[in-house]
Amino acid sequence: MEKCMKAVEKNRAVDFITKLSEQLAESYANGQGVNHNEGSNLPREAEILDILEKLMELIFPGFGKREAHSLATLRFSAAETAAAVYTQLSDAIQRAYSFTCKLSQSCGTCSCGDHAIQSTEKLLSEIPHLREILMKDVQAAFDGDPAAKSLDEIILSYPCIKAIMIQRIAHILYCDGIPLIPRIMGEYAHRITAIDIHPGAKLGEGIFIDHGTGVVIGETATIGSNVKIYQGVTLGALSFPKDTDGKIIKGQKRHPTIENNVTIYAGATILGDIVIGRDSVIGGNVWLTDSVAPGTKITIAAPEQIIR
Amino acid sequence: MEKCMKAVEKNRAVDFITKLSEQLAESYANGQGVNHNEGSNLPREAEILDILEKLMELIFPGFGKREAHSLATLRFSAAETAAAVYTQLSDAIQRAYSFTCKLSQSCGTCSCGDHAIQSTEKLLSEIPHLREILMKDVQAAFDGDPAAKSLDEIILSYPCIKAIMIQRIAHILYCDGIPLIPRIMGEYAHRITAIDIHPGAKLGEGIFIDHGTGVVIGETATIGSNVKIYQGVTLGALSFPKDTDGKIIKGQKRHPTIENNVTIYAGATILGDIVIGRDSVIGGNVWLTDSVAPGTKITIAAPEQIIR
Amino acid sequence: MEKCMKAVEKNRAVDFITKLSEQLAESYANGQGVNHNEGSNLPREAEILDILEKLMELIFPGFGKREAHSLATLRFSAAETAAAVYTQLSDAIQRAYSFTCKLSQSCGTCSCGDHAIQSTEKLLSEIPHLREILMKDVQAAFDGDPAAKSLDEIILSYPCIKAIMIQRIAHILYCDGIPLIPRIMGEYAHRITAIDIHPGAKLGEGIFIDHGTGVVIGETATIGSNVKIYQGVTLGALSFPKDTDGKIIKGQKRHPTIENNVTIYAGATILGDIVIGRDSVIGGNVWLTDSVAPGTKITIAAPEQIIR
Repeated sequence: MEKCMKAVEKNRAVDFITKLSEQLAESYANGQGVNHNEGSNLPREAEILDILEKLMELIFPGFGKREAHSLATLRFSAAETAAAVYTQLSDAIQRAYSFTCKLSQSCGTCSCGDHAIQSTEKLLSEIPHLREILMKDVQAAFDGDPAAKSLDEIILSYPCIKAIMIQRIAHILYCDGIPLIPRIMGEYAHRITAIDIHPGAKLGEGIFIDHGTGVVIGETATIGSNVKIYQGVTLGALSFPKDTDGKIIKGQKRHPTIENNVTIYAGATILGDIVIGRDSVIGGNVWLTDSVAPGTKITIAAPEQIIR
Repeated sequence: MEKCMKAVEKNRAVDFITKLSEQLAESYANGQGVNHNEGSNLPREAEILDILEKLMELIFPGFGKREAHSLATLRFSAAETAAAVYTQLSDAIQRAYSFTCKLSQSCGTCSCGDHAIQSTEKLLSEIPHLREILMKDVQAAFDGDPAAKSLDEIILSYPCIKAIMIQRIAHILYCDGIPLIPRIMGEYAHRITAIDIHPGAKLGEGIFIDHGTGVVIGETATIGSNVKIYQGVTLGALSFPKDTDGKIIKGQKRHPTIENNVTIYAGATILGDIVIGRDSVIGGNVWLTDSVAPGTKITIAAPEQIIR
Repeated sequence: MEKCMKAVEKNRAVDFITKLSEQLAESYANGQGVNHNEGSNLPREAEILDILEKLMELIFPGFGKREAHSLATLRFSAAETAAAVYTQLSDAIQRAYSFTCKLSQSCGTCSCGDHAIQSTEKLLSEIPHLREILMKDVQAAFDGDPAAKSLDEIILSYPCIKAIMIQRIAHILYCDGIPLIPRIMGEYAHRITAIDIHPGAKLGEGIFIDHGTGVVIGETATIGSNVKIYQGVTLGALSFPKDTDGKIIKGQKRHPTIENNVTIYAGATILGDIVIGRDSVIGGNVWLTDSVAPGTKITIAAPEQIIR
């Protein structure tokens, strides 16, 4: 490019960029769609993903990183990683809190900084426990998938473990009322696994999501323990109640409750604030908008097919 | 590895690599599946994604990058980013143009370089307008999703915003007849969102795609304004007309037209060059190959299910 | 953050991290969910993806990388890349082998190092052949997709090419009995394409997977040549035979066999160890658990729909 760019073309480029940057400055002036220091200075996606990588490294050390760990020195590298998360996450949470404070015009009366430290410590303190419940998810995948060869293979490669691990992290932050950050984490998991579990969903222990592509689990869904879910399953909302202005009312329970030991096969759609009783088996492509009793087995009738 | 690699093994490795590189050189010699300077020197995926990241930073500054922006100096960083895009994109477009010129054996009679500069300036000039219509998409997501807490959360995390933003950028290049680059951008969006919108599709304003995993919108689809689409929806082709040699005819309108204010629920499949009239509601899992009048509401009959 | 972190807060952070790192050390002590040098030292995801990028660069040089290739010097850069793969992959395979050896308590009687070199050479030797069969996949995509403009566009951007290329690489390693690495590669392909093909599946020549989001192809599936598959297709298992302890039996043939020249449209679900005879066409959303004869065309009956 350089070699064929004559003086006249360079002037053209300079003039064009100068004019464009004026227009951009004008467009940015209303503050919409701009994230900056003097404004809300929101947590940026890149920094949240960096924190998330570190949290996952603390949970399953040595699986994602390029460098190998020595068992002898692992506690020191863990301490270093935890210290970095402590600083970065409490900073990001503080900015996320103050963003909401400004929206609700209550800022100045709060103590965002204290809350940020407390929330960060709460999440970090949960890591030993997260390791325990995630090992149960790993075991559930091993027990449920004939193609699984070892527990380590599952930690190394199964998308459901990443999706569930990130959801369990994000859920802790969500329950602490932290804005923005849980959803950024959740959508990162969605991106890398095509499994979309809202940070608000409540998950039991020993959850296995096989293949997972296209799974959608909504904000107010509740899932018991030992539940097995296949690709393309939706636990969604049936309709959204609206207020008198026709605006959707936010925050109500609108997604299913799945009790313990339920299996839901690929492509099933379960909508609304209904209950799937324990030990039920929901067949592939089943469409459900009503509660079912414990122990129910539902399959679709053999669809009429035209064979030539 | 190094420690246990003895002299004899080193020789073995050297001999193996030497022989393999001969075979590779022979395999590359026919030029198929090789991208190089002396040949078409196609835009590489990595450089297009770098350009795309910069364009997205110009549209919503400060949301993706690691470093924070200062509002005071934002116009200068925007100018720097725009200048980098100007050089990189016009270079990539020129090479993409000359690739097609060579294929059609018309190269030498064209002025790829001029066209490349013009197309680059056209796209950059559209950025203030893209900001405006993308803010309408963000508002549509906020209005349509009970789980959305703020506009900023949507820009920061919603996959549909990334997919639609990239499609709107790629569509401008597509309409300018630029080969390769729009599709690389489109498939990048597909990769990070599992939403597959061809750069050729025409999108109206205020589009919301909820969850989005598995959505497919074909090259000649047209979508009006205020349209809401859920996960797993296909706006596809029904069949491909073939020429007398049995080869598929390329370039014909073969995908649906969706008019304003239509909602299409999860898993619906709409195929062929048909029209979904304005204000229609297409239910989950509906299968449509015929046009429907404005205001139509279609749902599937309750599927027969076997409950035990 | 730094500016507002007073001495008392710094002490608080130090105390917290110190205590946490003790708890983490305790949690790591049982060795579960920890990957370290003194233990199995498993191949880490990041190193496998680095190797995979290099293998893809050897197959289609110049398409992914940022730097342009010169045709004159291509063989030397290929040799360098191949040499790096030789060292990195044989090292990773050796560690993967010894992981399994330890699991089966047969380590010490094997020669993991020799096997690792042999497997690495076998894979590298296959690259010229892989280039040939992948060019057939590229041609199949061109012939099958009206939106495809050139072969290069397909190599540059189509997710199915990435998914099939990675599967063909991983399948060679899988057939050689290498643990962990094939599955890491397969799940990487799943992540970037939403196409989930198990490394164990046997693929014929000239496979085209259009759009691809949500496609699942199981470990023991067999697919013939000139097969066309659309988004959302599952070639899965119907049920898992269990042993007398109720544990799933691993390793049996449990997925479909698809013969030559079959087309399977979007959303079709084909389950179990059945055969889809050559030249068959399976319509969108069809659900199949029985074999069909060659030349069969199956579509779903027009579903009853309620129109208001």
